[in-house]
Amino acid sequence: MSETSGRIKQHRTAEATVELTLDGEPLAGREVVVEQTRHRFLFGCTGFEVIDHANGTDADPERAARNAELWEGLFNFATLPFYWGRFEPERGNPDTERLLKAAQWFVDRGHPVKGHPLAWHTVTADWLLDLDNEEIARVQVERIKREVAQFAGVIDMWDVINEVVIMPIFDKYDNGITRLCRDIGRIPMVRMVFDAAREAGPNAVLLLNDFDMSAAYECLIEGVLEAGIKIDVLGLQSHMHQGYWGEEKTEAILDRFSRYGLPIHFTETTILSGSIMPPEIVDLNDYQVDSWPSTPEGEARQADEIERHYKTLLAHPSVEAVTYWGMNDAGMWLGAPGGFVRADGTPKPSYDRLHHLVNNEWGTPPTTMATDAEGRLRFNGFLGDYRITYQDRRADLVLAEPGESHLSAALA
Amino acid sequence: MSETSGRIKQHRTAEATVELTLDGEPLAGREVVVEQTRHRFLFGCTGFEVIDHANGTDADPERAARNAELWEGLFNFATLPFYWGRFEPERGNPDTERLLKAAQWFVDRGHPVKGHPLAWHTVTADWLLDLDNEEIARVQVERIKREVAQFAGVIDMWDVINEVVIMPIFDKYDNGITRLCRDIGRIPMVRMVFDAAREAGPNAVLLLNDFDMSAAYECLIEGVLEAGIKIDVLGLQSHMHQGYWGEEKTEAILDRFSRYGLPIHFTETTILSGSIMPPEIVDLNDYQVDSWPSTPEGEARQADEIERHYKTLLAHPSVEAVTYWGMNDAGMWLGAPGGFVRADGTPKPSYDRLHHLVNNEWGTPPTTMATDAEGRLRFNGFLGDYRITYQDRRADLVLAEPGESHLSAALA
Repeated sequence: MSETSGRIKQHRTAEATVELTLDGEPLAGREVVVEQTRHRFLFGCTGFEVIDHANGTDADPERAARNAELWEGLFNFATLPFYWGRFEPERGNPDTERLLKAAQWFVDRGHPVKGHPLAWHTVTADWLLDLDNEEIARVQVERIKREVAQFAGVIDMWDVINEVVIMPIFDKYDNGITRLCRDIGRIPMVRMVFDAAREAGPNAVLLLNDFDMSAAYECLIEGVLEAGIKIDVLGLQSHMHQGYWGEEKTEAILDRFSRYGLPIHFTETTILSGSIMPPEIVDLNDYQVDSWPSTPEGEARQADEIERHYKTLLAHPSVEAVTYWGMNDAGMWLGAPGGFVRADGTPKPSYDRLHHLVNNEWGTPPTTMATDAEGRLRFNGFLGDYRITYQDRRADLVLAEPGESHLSAALA
Repeated sequence: MSETSGRIKQHRTAEATVELTLDGEPLAGREVVVEQTRHRFLFGCTGFEVIDHANGTDADPERAARNAELWEGLFNFATLPFYWGRFEPERGNPDTERLLKAAQWFVDRGHPVKGHPLAWHTVTADWLLDLDNEEIARVQVERIKREVAQFAGVIDMWDVINEVVIMPIFDKYDNGITRLCRDIGRIPMVRMVFDAAREAGPNAVLLLNDFDMSAAYECLIEGVLEAGIKIDVLGLQSHMHQGYWGEEKTEAILDRFSRYGLPIHFTETTILSGSIMPPEIVDLNDYQVDSWPSTPEGEARQADEIERHYKTLLAHPSVEAVTYWGMNDAGMWLGAPGGFVRADGTPKPSYDRLHHLVNNEWGTPPTTMATDAEGRLRFNGFLGDYRITYQDRRADLVLAEPGESHLSAALA
């Protein structure tokens, strides 16, 4: 077993001993079927494309249903878009109902949903430009409270604020959020939006999210924590349009950002199956190409890199989620071939690779096992939910913590 | 007048009207000599080479005296070295006396002195490695209090801590300060060293200094200020071994770092008169060459860039000091030809250029002027100290604020 596999096993699996009973008696010496029904680890992806599907408004319902099926083959955690400029392009007319239906679609299938983002200078509402900074602050706070309250119970996890490191010095175009952040400073901005989200959703999981993996983000985090602002999870973007980071860089980043004792989400992961963006591009948005095809060599490379990247992340105990930034090449940011599924709807090798990892190597598909003479079942499984079936009876159980786990389950 | 010249005039000069009296009567219609004796703006430089001269231990006293003379031709503000690993290589045996003599040499000539630095992970004391982190913190605090107290009245300005952005993630070699900073975090580290310096020197001017001009330093500063730590001056290093920044970059940096309302010192300025270090070098220390000559073309370019750089800085009202990092090529960091004086002791064109700017264009050498019928003298001068001489009588005055200034002076 490699060192990485060993750490994955150490941090992600339990050695379960289950005392199984049927009608109060140990179920001794019988064959049962054990199946993991859900990973505790959050294998996430954007769920943007499901919005139309969930609302019954997709122009190609068959394709949408097939996409939804592919999505559930890999993922158990969705990110839905709350970009202010698109969610409420006209002030007072938010897209709440449509997003609620989409979120509910995921929740009905057991997949938690995160909203992204509540405050960001990019794709923010243009109408903020007509307001003074005090007014911008007021409507930003109101907006946060509205979304967090209206979606509570369906969406209870939020990227509260995105890219604060660059926020006050963002100079591509004028926008209300940069104006405000420059005026009041980064930490007061973070405090304001987290206070609003916390007030409206005292039980919500609140993330600070950034693409800047340099010491700048560390300094921001340290300032925010010193200021007494409670962050539940650190979000690290990881768009790799300029090439896969490799284990060493990823581990160094994990090492630096795990110092704060906070759970880490890799919030926006992209790994390409085509040519790599040149290294001299600083703002990825500056790279505009007519066509950016997925290639056979690129797809083979992507499958390997996806496997390496996910293994690196699962091997670190701080990581609780990886969200991939787009399952399909169709409609992907910058037109990049970063999906698990080609533009024509066929899965790439990366799809099959991750599917195998999540569902077989790390998951437990329905597997026949035998109880011992005392009715005990022993198995090693990834943390999460399990179902044990014996004839027409069944029992559900949860492996909640890594290491030795002693459980009892009554078939019902 | 260019826009830059206009701003220099606006922020750096006073329109003085001086009512001059002699024995209680207005000195009407007479010629007097006006001379600026000191700039308020701090034209600084390292004073490392003067240490031996001031202590009478220089191997070449004539050369040392000539150097000291050249130094005073350009500068009015010195930085002296307090690198812990050199100041106290053997625990308990600090180099206090020698540094006190050097500092006194400058002070006796009217030049304030800054100590650099009190806490830094580079060139720190090796013997810290034998201590645990709690002990390192204790001796760091003691060291700061000792230096600030023992030099009080001679050195009342300190780079309290240097390069905090990189401090906890510095990975070139193990050292006690990185260990400590990684353990307790950047902001508690800054608080600890500033508290110590403030306690020992309640009237000292205390700087936070960094080479990182990115958003990382902004985030650090904002965190430090939000945490209630009082910083007197922000220090921005500006080693330009990879080429002169140009006005646009320098102004953008000034714009970003002046947002905090704190005075700014350009603490470590280097502009080369030879070939430029390749852009791919990230840590300047990695560039090692056998010979790095000053060239005629390089010297012409350096003189122009020095002029442009100093003008950009004087045009911004937040800048109170520029410290050049080494007057002489001999002994310069990395062997770079960054001085105003060649290794053979002759001044480069940059020396003459800055000398002219400081003493003539911006200074007022002894100049004959006439008082009016009411004994008033009108002149525009850079802020600082002036002496008016009439026959064998004289009066000293200070232009303290930019703009209109009405003063009276009695010849004594």
